[in-house]
Amino acid sequence: MGSKKFNIRNHQAYTNLKSLSKSFIKKNVHLKNLIQTKNRFEKFSLQMNDFSYDFSKQRIDDAILKELFELARQTNAKETFSQMVSGKTVNTTEKRPALHTAARDFTQDQILLNDKDVIIEINKVNKQIKSFTENIHNKKIKGTTGKFFTDAVVIGIGGSYLGCKFVYSALQHGIEPLINLHFLPNVDIDNFGQIIKKINPETCLWIIISKSYTTIETMANLNQALLFLKNNHLDPANHIVTVTAKDSPGDEPSNSSLGSFHMFDFIGGRYSVASAVGGLPLSLAFGFDNFHRFLKGCHTMDLHAINAPEENNIPLITALISIWNSNFLDYPALAIIPYCTALSNLCPHVQQLYMESLGKGVTHDGKITDHRTGTIIFGEPGTNAQHSFFQFAHQGSPFPIEFIGVVNPVYNKAQATSKGVSNHQELWANLIAQATGLAKGNKTNNNAKYFPGNRPSSTILINDLTPESIGMLLAFYEARTVYEGFILGINPFDQFGVELGKVLASDIRNQIRQKNINKTNDFTSLDTATKFYLDILFKESL
Amino acid sequence: MGSKKFNIRNHQAYTNLKSLSKSFIKKNVHLKNLIQTKNRFEKFSLQMNDFSYDFSKQRIDDAILKELFELARQTNAKETFSQMVSGKTVNTTEKRPALHTAARDFTQDQILLNDKDVIIEINKVNKQIKSFTENIHNKKIKGTTGKFFTDAVVIGIGGSYLGCKFVYSALQHGIEPLINLHFLPNVDIDNFGQIIKKINPETCLWIIISKSYTTIETMANLNQALLFLKNNHLDPANHIVTVTAKDSPGDEPSNSSLGSFHMFDFIGGRYSVASAVGGLPLSLAFGFDNFHRFLKGCHTMDLHAINAPEENNIPLITALISIWNSNFLDYPALAIIPYCTALSNLCPHVQQLYMESLGKGVTHDGKITDHRTGTIIFGEPGTNAQHSFFQFAHQGSPFPIEFIGVVNPVYNKAQATSKGVSNHQELWANLIAQATGLAKGNKTNNNAKYFPGNRPSSTILINDLTPESIGMLLAFYEARTVYEGFILGINPFDQFGVELGKVLASDIRNQIRQKNINKTNDFTSLDTATKFYLDILFKESL
Repeated sequence: MGSKKFNIRNHQAYTNLKSLSKSFIKKNVHLKNLIQTKNRFEKFSLQMNDFSYDFSKQRIDDAILKELFELARQTNAKETFSQMVSGKTVNTTEKRPALHTAARDFTQDQILLNDKDVIIEINKVNKQIKSFTENIHNKKIKGTTGKFFTDAVVIGIGGSYLGCKFVYSALQHGIEPLINLHFLPNVDIDNFGQIIKKINPETCLWIIISKSYTTIETMANLNQALLFLKNNHLDPANHIVTVTAKDSPGDEPSNSSLGSFHMFDFIGGRYSVASAVGGLPLSLAFGFDNFHRFLKGCHTMDLHAINAPEENNIPLITALISIWNSNFLDYPALAIIPYCTALSNLCPHVQQLYMESLGKGVTHDGKITDHRTGTIIFGEPGTNAQHSFFQFAHQGSPFPIEFIGVVNPVYNKAQATSKGVSNHQELWANLIAQATGLAKGNKTNNNAKYFPGNRPSSTILINDLTPESIGMLLAFYEARTVYEGFILGINPFDQFGVELGKVLASDIRNQIRQKNINKTNDFTSLDTATKFYLDILFKESL
Repeated sequence: MGSKKFNIRNHQAYTNLKSLSKSFIKKNVHLKNLIQTKNRFEKFSLQMNDFSYDFSKQRIDDAILKELFELARQTNAKETFSQMVSGKTVNTTEKRPALHTAARDFTQDQILLNDKDVIIEINKVNKQIKSFTENIHNKKIKGTTGKFFTDAVVIGIGGSYLGCKFVYSALQHGIEPLINLHFLPNVDIDNFGQIIKKINPETCLWIIISKSYTTIETMANLNQALLFLKNNHLDPANHIVTVTAKDSPGDEPSNSSLGSFHMFDFIGGRYSVASAVGGLPLSLAFGFDNFHRFLKGCHTMDLHAINAPEENNIPLITALISIWNSNFLDYPALAIIPYCTALSNLCPHVQQLYMESLGKGVTHDGKITDHRTGTIIFGEPGTNAQHSFFQFAHQGSPFPIEFIGVVNPVYNKAQATSKGVSNHQELWANLIAQATGLAKGNKTNNNAKYFPGNRPSSTILINDLTPESIGMLLAFYEARTVYEGFILGINPFDQFGVELGKVLASDIRNQIRQKNINKTNDFTSLDTATKFYLDILFKESL
């Protein structure tokens, strides 16, 4: 890492920003005035390669923006990003690199890691994905009863499905799936129960995604799937494929399956959509060529994130504004509001990507943090959100919003007009109006209809719902997240915060297992609350 | 309303709670110690009619709880709730009652409103729903081409679909739908484009839900649906039904349709699931008898919310704890985490119900509020959430969590075991473990693995996914929301905060319409940002 000072508060720019924020708040600078300053939009917006970012309605001015760039320089954000891309050990707690960008790198000849070329390994897996999915589509690979595949169930949780589900749901608007995907993340048996209503067991593939092949939920759902296959007289060797680490218990040939596709230690779960984790299911659904187009979109954004100078670097600026909003203006949350139903699953993906990466309690050198790291992310598509929680956004406790617009919808058949505009035009009228209303507000004599305004937002535009555009959007959120982590001096690649729950769940599981074996186990050694819940679980009634 | 003092800060209990919170924070009372105090679980949990609420892991003690009940009494919360149920004008800004409880009231003989009996009017609509949906199910009512109906598209936004979608998705785990529902809230044309891929126009009903029949999005989607019917040579009179106010433009016979089902002024959108808004689609999907069972569940909770004394009143206590967490402990958000995939759509519904009801800037008497009203609501089902944002929940900025457990899953066919437990048992092991881990935390020498704990949560249990249990859960969130509004001295039934966006969108729509008519309109009268977006919209490219 570039700097030894991992606490962001030790940088001069941070101190300067603190005093800038104090005077900014004290002067009570209102957004309705800020957005009318000269050349505001020109100075506070950027366009690159069919991706547009407008931060003119953020509560910043020239001096603040300048100092934010200074903060990026003092924390060596760009240098660290380049180190990440070239394979340095940026994930210091787990002592490994974070090479998700290598999964879509079409420019570097090689990235050496322990004398092995990462690019060669990635290309090998992609070739395997291409060949396997073509054989499924060409009906060369079929199920036990000789029928060709129509559906695939993805068994994987967290980073093993959220990104893939986002891309799948976004692309299926424009590309008819060759294979329908279903997602089974939850150990909840009713998640399984609903999915098997929708599939024909004879024409269904099961994709098991787990790096270690020990993830509790995934293994429990795998066992449930194996029982289901057995009861339907189907051979797992014809119906199961795995995405897992080399030599894990799920890797062929130790595991009987149609094949294994390798995940690598150097790509973390929540950054893994461009690897086999997204590659296999998405290529099954849309064909490998479309997955390749998606990778190209990711790569375009990666190149921008690496090469653009601070002042033109969209993911970096987004990260700086996020830090400004959470650490200096004290906003506790960010809403992501795509004016696009196809992007409904973007927010759950970014919620994981961002909150798991940045919700940390220690800096890179193991010191307890004394500043905010990340914020809560939530959101629903607009205009739906306007009829849901936007009452709160306008008149309740304020929070920043990230709007996303898509220039061209997919649907191109007969379209009605209402009040003289098409539905897509109506959608955009609302997108534009909300950002303006939140910023400007409105005064009236009736307090119930008073809008304080001064509520910040950014607006992102992408051109369409093609694989390239979705790839750019995905890589944008990845780059912005790691940039924010680098500037905050924390590790955006580990997730030790999930460990305690696992340990405690294991203790309770043991109690349940004992009771399954010996019905006389009465949980009296446990605290009252835990005993209460376990008694009810076994009584099967409140 | 019972009290003239609408500002919660004017109550003695509020002042007392302020000083209690200061000493509580100063004493640094940790939850790991609190939960071990004598009879903690017995004193801080409640069970009623197959509904359990455990608030033993909230950061409160006996003195705080006592004072919270005092706050409820001083704000006349229970009295106001009873007034609401009996039809008093509790929605003061819009000068009308809020009688959603009447939609499932099986005990009161009559509720008079302007000399009309509300109960009779509601029963009339329910009879009409029963008869109509039976005729659909019995195939007496068919589409233009003589085929019987298999699908219905609900066109409605906000309160006209979120609650219904929650109940539909929860119940379909246990009850096979007779008619499949699809939801078309968004004016995004791709929302429409995806739905028509899934339906056969000849066997599809369209349910248009809008009280005024002027909601922009709903009318735009109606026009799109009418064009679609026309292009498929189908008669709207055979394929459209409306849920709307008497004498609105969508009311039969002024509108050509299969029939109209009336909505009433005295039931607000976000509280309308038990009215025809939920009644018609849910009865189509599951039969009127199941909708009736759902109403009974709602009513059971309503009776509890009305009759239980403060100390035993679950929705009231939940509201008090919510106020404690947001106004005294300064938490900015609440996560709702059902350990149940079937409840995936509960959070988006409650997000609207709660944030639109409580995200207000004025008290009942029109004074600008100087305290927090409501909080951000977000969430995903567990265990999924554990692999998403629970890193942040354990080690990032803390927020309270509401866990929900379901004692009995629906799926009852062959079940596998893993590590000696069933999937449902594994789910519960995690549900119990998370609440414990968040409260207790854990100390280690490695700061990266340090869990500060002291993070509050509640746990709600329902027995199953029957219509009765889902009704109780829905009515619980309604009662808890209005209780919080009453105590905060705000109006939980209006939503003036959505007006500004509508006005501004209308201005922009006019600009777009002008350009549609006259291509030379070049938006030069508009601000740079707005012009930028409109130029791109018409250029169809970034």
